[in-house]
Amino acid sequence: MPESTRIAEVHVTPILISDPPLLNVQGVHQPYTPRTIVEVVTENGMSGIGETYGDTDYLTIAQAFGPELVGRPLTARNDLFARVAAAAAEVDIARIDNTVVAEGLRGARTEVKLVHSVVSAFEVALLDALGHETGLPVHALLGGKVRDRVEYSGYLFYRWAAHPLPGEPEDDWGAALDPAGVVAQAQRFADRYGFRSFKLKGGAFAPEQEVAAVHALHEAFPDAPLRLDPNGAWSVETSLRVAAELEGVAEYLEDPTAGTEQMARVAARTSLPLATNMCVTALDEVPAAFAADAVQVVLSDHHYWGGLRATQDLAAICRTHGKQLSMHSNTHLGISLAAMTHVAATIPDLDHACDTHRPWQTEDVITAPHTFRDGCVEVTDAPGLGIELDRDSLARLHRRWLDGDVRDRDDAAAMRRVCPEWQAPSFPVW
Amino acid sequence: MPESTRIAEVHVTPILISDPPLLNVQGVHQPYTPRTIVEVVTENGMSGIGETYGDTDYLTIAQAFGPELVGRPLTARNDLFARVAAAAAEVDIARIDNTVVAEGLRGARTEVKLVHSVVSAFEVALLDALGHETGLPVHALLGGKVRDRVEYSGYLFYRWAAHPLPGEPEDDWGAALDPAGVVAQAQRFADRYGFRSFKLKGGAFAPEQEVAAVHALHEAFPDAPLRLDPNGAWSVETSLRVAAELEGVAEYLEDPTAGTEQMARVAARTSLPLATNMCVTALDEVPAAFAADAVQVVLSDHHYWGGLRATQDLAAICRTHGKQLSMHSNTHLGISLAAMTHVAATIPDLDHACDTHRPWQTEDVITAPHTFRDGCVEVTDAPGLGIELDRDSLARLHRRWLDGDVRDRDDAAAMRRVCPEWQAPSFPVW
Ligand SMILES: [Mg+2]
Ligand SMILES: [Mg+2]
Repeated sequence: MPESTRIAEVHVTPILISDPPLLNVQGVHQPYTPRTIVEVVTENGMSGIGETYGDTDYLTIAQAFGPELVGRPLTARNDLFARVAAAAAEVDIARIDNTVVAEGLRGARTEVKLVHSVVSAFEVALLDALGHETGLPVHALLGGKVRDRVEYSGYLFYRWAAHPLPGEPEDDWGAALDPAGVVAQAQRFADRYGFRSFKLKGGAFAPEQEVAAVHALHEAFPDAPLRLDPNGAWSVETSLRVAAELEGVAEYLEDPTAGTEQMARVAARTSLPLATNMCVTALDEVPAAFAADAVQVVLSDHHYWGGLRATQDLAAICRTHGKQLSMHSNTHLGISLAAMTHVAATIPDLDHACDTHRPWQTEDVITAPHTFRDGCVEVTDAPGLGIELDRDSLARLHRRWLDGDVRDRDDAAAMRRVCPEWQAPSFPVW
Repeated sequence: MPESTRIAEVHVTPILISDPPLLNVQGVHQPYTPRTIVEVVTENGMSGIGETYGDTDYLTIAQAFGPELVGRPLTARNDLFARVAAAAAEVDIARIDNTVVAEGLRGARTEVKLVHSVVSAFEVALLDALGHETGLPVHALLGGKVRDRVEYSGYLFYRWAAHPLPGEPEDDWGAALDPAGVVAQAQRFADRYGFRSFKLKGGAFAPEQEVAAVHALHEAFPDAPLRLDPNGAWSVETSLRVAAELEGVAEYLEDPTAGTEQMARVAARTSLPLATNMCVTALDEVPAAFAADAVQVVLSDHHYWGGLRATQDLAAICRTHGKQLSMHSNTHLGISLAAMTHVAATIPDLDHACDTHRPWQTEDVITAPHTFRDGCVEVTDAPGLGIELDRDSLARLHRRWLDGDVRDRDDAAAMRRVCPEWQAPSFPVW
């Protein structure tokens, strides 16, 4: 391809996808959750796709930036941060004071994090399109795969059998509200997808109940690495009590308590590694957390860090400081699963199975969703991400967005439909 | 290109190139210095080239590894570190005890550093060949340039007019042994190449004389950012005295004293930023140096850090910790100047002019050496590095290596030809 190949079209499409009633400390997943799908088309007619969060602020920035890519070189990714930040500065988003509200599912919410998440969708789309132009898979554009398949962890949730209102999306997984339910869910995950490690989203019940569930998992799957993630809901003391009960059982404990300072106090008194996707989710959070040895495992997420190249940067930063790397996931579709798999394949020292929500999704916008075999996704050598946009699905899910009124994820609001008194909890909850 | 494109041939060629009698704390440059030139050829006949150090240990590892690349995918770069390290483990090189000998020109000498320097040549060659296969310039393979030209600094040396023996390589620069000589050299650099900033290699004379030279430069070029680099030759006290004399005059002070601990003691008591290519030259040296705030500017060097991608990693690490980035240079040819220019073009926050020795070299192995205009090298959009191997020159310089007996750089040995009593100095020298 000529270096001068330019972007001819950019499409930014908000969609709503079905989501099961998965529980966490903030509440429960809504029946529908927003995602933003980005497509770039080169002047040669080659397409590339990416996805990211669909909440209003992300969508607003993505819609503002999208048209600015038209006419730009296909290969220009290093200036995305500056260009998206400039676009964000011009639009009406909820300006965030950068005071630390460490309890958010993503830790402190800052404008830089919004920008990075928008960058991630465009960066992935540009890489996908470049792959189609050159014939190369995305992993090859990132320096080549060092493994042929990427292992994922079975992501277990406490959940209801169904959303509360008739007509809302259904699945046949049934409820999981106690240790037996969690083990049954894990068993089904293992049978269907071959997962060999499991993560339990905690923070939904009292710590003792969740510890009991992890012990039950350990009994059912004695060789499986296990993780528990209450999203920062516990005090330092509670975290230490849980850590003591899970040493030798859990692979790591994920965000037991909120904020770098409290995480450091826990880390200092347990041998169980602490992982995070809350207190280290942007570069400026790294120095203090690493200096305090607040975490031992950083959960990368290309939506958080600004794309696949930035995920490789994070790997280098972790390598420098002797931190381990794993991978975080929020609700996502097959585009992001492809992106996660490509970048994970390129990082030699990604030594833990990656998280993915994908098995919970019943809908997608790609024509051939990935299959998990032995818990792994194969790393494709097909050009780009190796997937194809399902334009009918995209149109249908965009129509749902147009017709619906869900614009932002709000787990507390969803919980209030069942428990009218529910409030976003004040931390520590336990 | 198909993802399956493989490497068909690898050529590792040691050469000797002419080098002027440039002075530093260790001695003086020899008349000839070794470099290793790497060429990879794909099964489609596309070539890519890289260069690195030519001393015995580097060459031995490169020669051991080269054949192992044959048959590998052209796009496989992420596994180079592991593969070259494995090759290095099998060969007879001077095994290095990793005790800190911080006074080397490259700081402590470790096996990892040897491996990284060998990786760098292969990585650059693979990127160059991939550029030829895809039609893309190397900067585009690295995420795209964020600037159209890269600024370099005029690299001033105290020097003799000529090497001591007849028949040794000559040039017409004349001697520079005092402030007037240094200013005259800078003036010629400015006139010929348009350099707008200058670095003086120090450690050759007493600090007062070198400070006087920097002051003379400041008088002659009042707007030019200036740097002084004695390669760690000074004590903490001497460094602080020089720093006080150069505040407001120098842009930064480079390795005034040897080792992280002493650098930190200097940094704590001056406002002049300290730069290094001695105490932070590999990932494992980063945490202690950054924690102690021993340096404020890290001098990247793709030969040190393991290639162009690793240089981008280093930029991310520096960004994370609020460190500035500049670029170091040792004696190198046009292949490395091309590589340096491509990677420098991709790093948004490379805010200092880069160092380069290239203007001192009278020979090259590319057909059209770069031109400096206003001190800058233009970032080419031609495929790969945008240069072509001069096979006649390569053959001639390789013949010189075969016929000659210089195998390792040894500035002290070169100095002993003039001063028989010369010994590698013990630090601090002043
Ligand atoms: Mg988490
Ligand atoms: Mg230096």
